[in-house]
Amino acid sequence: MDAPKRRRSATRARLLDGALEVFAERGFNGASVEDICERAGFTRGAFYSNFGSKDELVLALFQATTDRLLEQIGALLPDLANQPGTLLDAVLGLLDEAAGDQRQWHLISTEFTLHALRNPEAARALNRQRAMFRSSLTKLVEEISETSGMRMSVPAEQFVRLVIAVHEGARSQSLLEPRKVPAGSLERTFLPMVLTAVTA
Amino acid sequence: MDAPKRRRSATRARLLDGALEVFAERGFNGASVEDICERAGFTRGAFYSNFGSKDELVLALFQATTDRLLEQIGALLPDLANQPGTLLDAVLGLLDEAAGDQRQWHLISTEFTLHALRNPEAARALNRQRAMFRSSLTKLVEEISETSGMRMSVPAEQFVRLVIAVHEGARSQSLLEPRKVPAGSLERTFLPMVLTAVTA
Repeated sequence: MDAPKRRRSATRARLLDGALEVFAERGFNGASVEDICERAGFTRGAFYSNFGSKDELVLALFQATTDRLLEQIGALLPDLANQPGTLLDAVLGLLDEAAGDQRQWHLISTEFTLHALRNPEAARALNRQRAMFRSSLTKLVEEISETSGMRMSVPAEQFVRLVIAVHEGARSQSLLEPRKVPAGSLERTFLPMVLTAVTA
Repeated sequence: MDAPKRRRSATRARLLDGALEVFAERGFNGASVEDICERAGFTRGAFYSNFGSKDELVLALFQATTDRLLEQIGALLPDLANQPGTLLDAVLGLLDEAAGDQRQWHLISTEFTLHALRNPEAARALNRQRAMFRSSLTKLVEEISETSGMRMSVPAEQFVRLVIAVHEGARSQSLLEPRKVPAGSLERTFLPMVLTAVTA
């Protein structure tokens, strides 16, 4: 990267970090572009030369998080592609780590989903982003299924949708009652059972 | 019920219905007590003689919905207590119906959960309400397990937590992509597998 590109990339990263903090404190609707700029130490000009809107910034946050996660899963594949159960366990571990601060991440991703449920344009953009992530995970499951000779009784995408549903539903319980529902505990108890059931 | 009690109960019901609509439109944070009163056709006085706060009203909404659901499940028991799989299927059907408008219900229950994640007092009240509901469901699962001679490899409460997590996580996907994820489809595909696995 040349110097201007590096600077631009650092600006984006600081705006994303600042936004995550401000959203966690004030909510997606309560946080203004000004609040985010102030937290990150930039002007509105810097914001708008990087993101078209607050929505676009949130989608960039999702993209960065899912890209990192997919990269980490990819790194596990050479060793674990033949052991679907162990790989699932490792992926669940990554899901918990990838998001950094789970609470911040849960707040903004849930709030943006609610925003999308009231705003068709945001829903289209969010669904596009989620579809890309889901499709990458689905391809992975299909590849592993092929490599390991495991036959699945449900479409790989349905299994991926279930993993996402359990993870998102369980995270809400873990954040409300951290001592009673340690992060990842429901996923680790039940998803291996489902994997066994669909590959039996 | 005598006339004043009946009137009071009708007032509460209209305030709850009005609130559900206003929350769906403006969000929990965006909806004021005044908005709710205006929609329901009552004064602030009527509101505060029924509910101490907006939080209390939401918790009353949750209570009314879970009470109705538990009553409906109770009505199924005489016929189905011996057939856990069929009962699970019937309960999933009720979960989808009980809430009336799934979208409205998802918006307010998710928003109040986010509110609770930022407000310890609301979190305590919400956790109390959720714990009562979960405990009723757990007792049901334990009774059925006993009646049908089914032995479970996980505590009944963990299974109930999973059902709630899958339901809440899947509902979000169904509302974002109603055609790709028909309401209840992930639950109906995967929860029977889990039931079989934990009772194997």
